Amino acid sequence: MAVYTHLGAEVLGQLVAEFDVGELTSVKGIAEGISNSNWLVETTGKDGAPSGQGSARFILTMYEYRIEVEDLPFFLSLLDHLSARGCPVPRTIHDRQGNLYRLLDGKAVALIEFLPGVSVSAPTPGQAHAVGRALAQMQLAAADFAGSRDNAMGRAEWQRLASECGAAGLAEIDVGFAELVARELPAVLVDWPDGLPRGTIHADLFPDNVLMLGSQVTGLIDFYFACTDLFAYDLAVTHAAWCFSNDGKYFDPALSAALIAGYEEVRPLSDAERAALPLLARGAALRFALTRAWDWVNTPADALVTRKDPLAFARRLEFYADPANAAVFAGA
Amino acid sequence: MAVYTHLGAEVLGQLVAEFDVGELTSVKGIAEGISNSNWLVETTGKDGAPSGQGSARFILTMYEYRIEVEDLPFFLSLLDHLSARGCPVPRTIHDRQGNLYRLLDGKAVALIEFLPGVSVSAPTPGQAHAVGRALAQMQLAAADFAGSRDNAMGRAEWQRLASECGAAGLAEIDVGFAELVARELPAVLVDWPDGLPRGTIHADLFPDNVLMLGSQVTGLIDFYFACTDLFAYDLAVTHAAWCFSNDGKYFDPALSAALIAGYEEVRPLSDAERAALPLLARGAALRFALTRAWDWVNTPADALVTRKDPLAFARRLEFYADPANAAVFAGA
Repeated sequence: MAVYTHLGAEVLGQLVAEFDVGELTSVKGIAEGISNSNWLVETTGKDGAPSGQGSARFILTMYEYRIEVEDLPFFLSLLDHLSARGCPVPRTIHDRQGNLYRLLDGKAVALIEFLPGVSVSAPTPGQAHAVGRALAQMQLAAADFAGSRDNAMGRAEWQRLASECGAAGLAEIDVGFAELVARELPAVLVDWPDGLPRGTIHADLFPDNVLMLGSQVTGLIDFYFACTDLFAYDLAVTHAAWCFSNDGKYFDPALSAALIAGYEEVRPLSDAERAALPLLARGAALRFALTRAWDWVNTPADALVTRKDPLAFARRLEFYADPANAAVFAGA
Repeated sequence: MAVYTHLGAEVLGQLVAEFDVGELTSVKGIAEGISNSNWLVETTGKDGAPSGQGSARFILTMYEYRIEVEDLPFFLSLLDHLSARGCPVPRTIHDRQGNLYRLLDGKAVALIEFLPGVSVSAPTPGQAHAVGRALAQMQLAAADFAGSRDNAMGRAEWQRLASECGAAGLAEIDVGFAELVARELPAVLVDWPDGLPRGTIHADLFPDNVLMLGSQVTGLIDFYFACTDLFAYDLAVTHAAWCFSNDGKYFDPALSAALIAGYEEVRPLSDAERAALPLLARGAALRFALTRAWDWVNTPADALVTRKDPLAFARRLEFYADPANAAVFAGA
């Protein structure tokens, strides 16, 4: 959570004027995103509105860290593509020249539609079911999306992160964790089912990245890890993100069953995908355990950004690696 | 800028249900306030609204540091009082039992009306004029406000802060600054014009605490230093806050003239007040130089909160202390 850059109201007003969205009436820096600065922006709206009656809202994002500008056309066009196909995804607002993003102080900024909804902390099975459906719908709606992008957080990156942390670095977090990674990483890599159906995936669909009103999904957001990869891996990531207590200590079978059933209502899994899910879930848990471990090792304990506990995903990894738990993916 | 506390959507939904404002449809933690956590909250509105069409917005504030709960009735009732008298001040939303604030996780939280407008970074004379008018209107509108509160950032506090920093602490910031405080603090205290007209003042009307649309003031916010003190001191604080470059190096005579003229259109200064303004402005500059110095001395350089430069107000203090500059308060 952070706003890394201070932007004065005058600068923001000029920026907003480059878009056909009316005049700036309010702006609040919002505490979301760790790679971006974000502002909730209000304007009088495209057709104007009485002064003081902000009628249109947007998220203004400044890309600060980790996101490559050359990837922005993929991310931002994907939002447009999905939104046009009825997915609850925020549109990218193009500027008056049609650009998807602009440069401000040398940094890329994009104006993105605001969507209502809140991110749930303790999902219900009904909510997990709706998220499963929305994930599958998104994957299908992206079938004719022209863009493609390698998964920058894929298997090669897991190896690099593990190697950069080093066995000693991982052991400093927890000795058992280092042993778990040493055992699981090669096993998952060697068996990875590369031939499964693939397409555009979200790859980071945590509850924070889903807006809901009750059991309705009103927004899928934060597509900055979206890439071209296995559909079933996306489901595995979402499973790891939604079906456990935050600390990874408690698995919730009702959430798991609801998530998978919702997904399959829209896109039934093939037998090969279903059989691969335990392994894909081990990969998903490794991915977040290792990115968190890298951040843990490389972030001072008193830094501005809160470090997320790698062990929360080490516990999920242990769960998925236990053959007794493969049944959770066996289907109805 | 910070959100110190994580509140889940479910907890926030339950909290909002304690107010007659409809159902929660959106919540974003906002990067404002250093003593509070703040969220921009949207609801369906008192009379309901179609799902997903958030129609009412509020600022939810959780009081984390520095603000005493026993002071909240003063601050929050003052907002209601001023708003009812037509001042551009956000109303406090009372809960269903009529309470001004509630307790959540042992901390006080208040729901406050959202007002449109942006905080300007580089004010124009027209904007300074409008702010002068709004300040005087606020002071007059508070004349029949029943509450009163000592200025917790008044002269006794300046002495305490200077003494806690110590001459050595101040000299560590800057040797000239320590000498300036040693010279100015006793001089200002001995001549303080205690008998001038007094009432409820804002006492912290920086550009950050004023929302504007063009040259219209749409919001005076953040009344958490409001207190019972000299009206002209409030004008002096506002003068120090609006009429210089941020670093205090450049005084803008056009902003100064416009601010004072705007104020006097609504509440003309007495001769005694006008004569006292140079001294009151030295006091205002001392107040912010010393609170910033204390924060500087007591905040690690790498802390979450950005330290504000005390010398920006030391420079203002030098400006005000120069008899040649007293003419800026001499009036038209």
